Amino acid sequence: MSASFVALSGGVGGAKLALGLCEVLEDPRRLTVVANTGDDFEHLGLRVCPDLDTLTYTLAGLANPETGWGRAGESGAFMEALGALGGETWFFLGDRDLAIHVERTRRLRAGESLSAVTAALSARLGIRARIVPMSDEPVPTVVETDEGSLAFQHYFVRERCRPTVLGFRHEGAERARPCAAFLDALAASDLGAVIVCPSNPYISIDPILAVPGVRAALDACRAPVIAVSPIVGGRALKGPTAKMMAERGVEPGAAAIARHYDGLIDGLVLDEADRQDAAAVAATGVAVEVAATVMTGPTEKRALAQAVLAFAARIGADGERRPQSSSTA
Amino acid sequence: MSASFVALSGGVGGAKLALGLCEVLEDPRRLTVVANTGDDFEHLGLRVCPDLDTLTYTLAGLANPETGWGRAGESGAFMEALGALGGETWFFLGDRDLAIHVERTRRLRAGESLSAVTAALSARLGIRARIVPMSDEPVPTVVETDEGSLAFQHYFVRERCRPTVLGFRHEGAERARPCAAFLDALAASDLGAVIVCPSNPYISIDPILAVPGVRAALDACRAPVIAVSPIVGGRALKGPTAKMMAERGVEPGAAAIARHYDGLIDGLVLDEADRQDAAAVAATGVAVEVAATVMTGPTEKRALAQAVLAFAARIGADGERRPQSSSTA
Repeated sequence: MSASFVALSGGVGGAKLALGLCEVLEDPRRLTVVANTGDDFEHLGLRVCPDLDTLTYTLAGLANPETGWGRAGESGAFMEALGALGGETWFFLGDRDLAIHVERTRRLRAGESLSAVTAALSARLGIRARIVPMSDEPVPTVVETDEGSLAFQHYFVRERCRPTVLGFRHEGAERARPCAAFLDALAASDLGAVIVCPSNPYISIDPILAVPGVRAALDACRAPVIAVSPIVGGRALKGPTAKMMAERGVEPGAAAIARHYDGLIDGLVLDEADRQDAAAVAATGVAVEVAATVMTGPTEKRALAQAVLAFAARIGADGERRPQSSSTA
Repeated sequence: MSASFVALSGGVGGAKLALGLCEVLEDPRRLTVVANTGDDFEHLGLRVCPDLDTLTYTLAGLANPETGWGRAGESGAFMEALGALGGETWFFLGDRDLAIHVERTRRLRAGESLSAVTAALSARLGIRARIVPMSDEPVPTVVETDEGSLAFQHYFVRERCRPTVLGFRHEGAERARPCAAFLDALAASDLGAVIVCPSNPYISIDPILAVPGVRAALDACRAPVIAVSPIVGGRALKGPTAKMMAERGVEPGAAAIARHYDGLIDGLVLDEADRQDAAAVAATGVAVEVAATVMTGPTEKRALAQAVLAFAARIGADGERRPQSSSTA
């Protein structure tokens, strides 16, 4: 299997599948993982990129296995000292984790692009897959809530997703361009599949799709686009996906995910717990695969990656590709 | 004793005496410690102020008793992670210490002055004396060496003071102004003394004196100016003072310190080990006091502070103040 692959990813769930893909691919250098940067923000004067970092730590084997984000064996001496100085402590930055924020911020200020810094840091950590930010330009997600507009991390971390979501804005998207490595990977003649990771569709995948040119590039690529549902048994494994769906008037489930990605995906992987939704998903016009999507350990990550690749190969061979359309974003 | 006092200070030695002064003064709020900021530099995108921090940690009881600088119980997880990312590790920033650099940098970027940030952070840490940077404007010390011009920390930390010193420049001094709190403290009608701490005259005290207006303000104040010699038995207790003196063609000793501060000081405190230099110092026209200047513990710090204050009181009472002159900088 020497095809190349593109994965669109948010944080923890996406990073787990990306790690599985790295492990089952003969050559992980054929994998380009495109990270959502809508969560990025300036904090304490540092540029913090949570999804890029979760991907980096996960693929480098440095991630905290308990949380899925942050670093293993992390300590909080900085944060404690910062609190004593009256600094902001609502967003935890571990002592080891701080290094990536400080080094990235320094290099960005020196004029390097986010994609160049990301490539350099992940190479330094021995990561063979390519981790690519969706854009070098900031496209911060703003959450419209019943309590007003909130910067993403204020909604997500400071308010713990408590306010009711009314909608999302991708600020600055109109001026952003996809990273060149992202477009190059989509245009590769040997592209085997685009994999939409089991990430939050609203706040992890939609920001990537909101960058002008991404939808058109996805429409233009001949490889199948496969999503893995982030909803299992009506609930998200992690994060506010189900809560957001409910607040948006959508019943959380695989069929709603298929409808959300209508016009984008050719196939959807459902969890075994949602087997009964297969017909409803198929009715939206996409191919369906049922698999164990809960990646509790390395075995499960690899098995899901294998299932996704096999599903993509089958769709590719069957020519089950959805009708091509112009941008439906 | 309700007079107010001003101490001019570099790092470790100065901070020890400042702590002694805080402890023996009835009201430590009457003490203004003016810190050298010539050592300050931008590192990893952070504004690092070594002497301000040594003073802050020392007066807050947080200093590392082994080194005299940095924080007690410090850890290096950040630095280790930074090294793994290929970042610069020649200047150690401990996990706890990082908090002050990050918080200060954030506040400076938000538009606060260095003196305002310093006051806020030291108040937060329960420090009752006032710690004041010599200037809110950067006046970085450049060391002219036989290997060319070196930014101070490159000379001091990266090169470990190895190159031969030819001279010093105080970059930007012509555009700098003393902090208002510094001038106010010198102009106080109840000023009991100005104390030049046992700090390196070239790289800790001269930068303070190089800020336009400082020499004139010192000349104008009626209180005695007392220095404590940083040289004991021909050697510096810490740092490159003696090496620098030798490289500048000056024999390291109390008499050379007195000559260095000629026109500035009214009295010099020598260590007991240098009692034989008293006559040579007196010959330069300043009053002499002999005391134990090696501040190994709290008792020694307090004893030296007492000796300095008593000496200053005696000079003040005797009217032994040096002849007033216009700026002799």
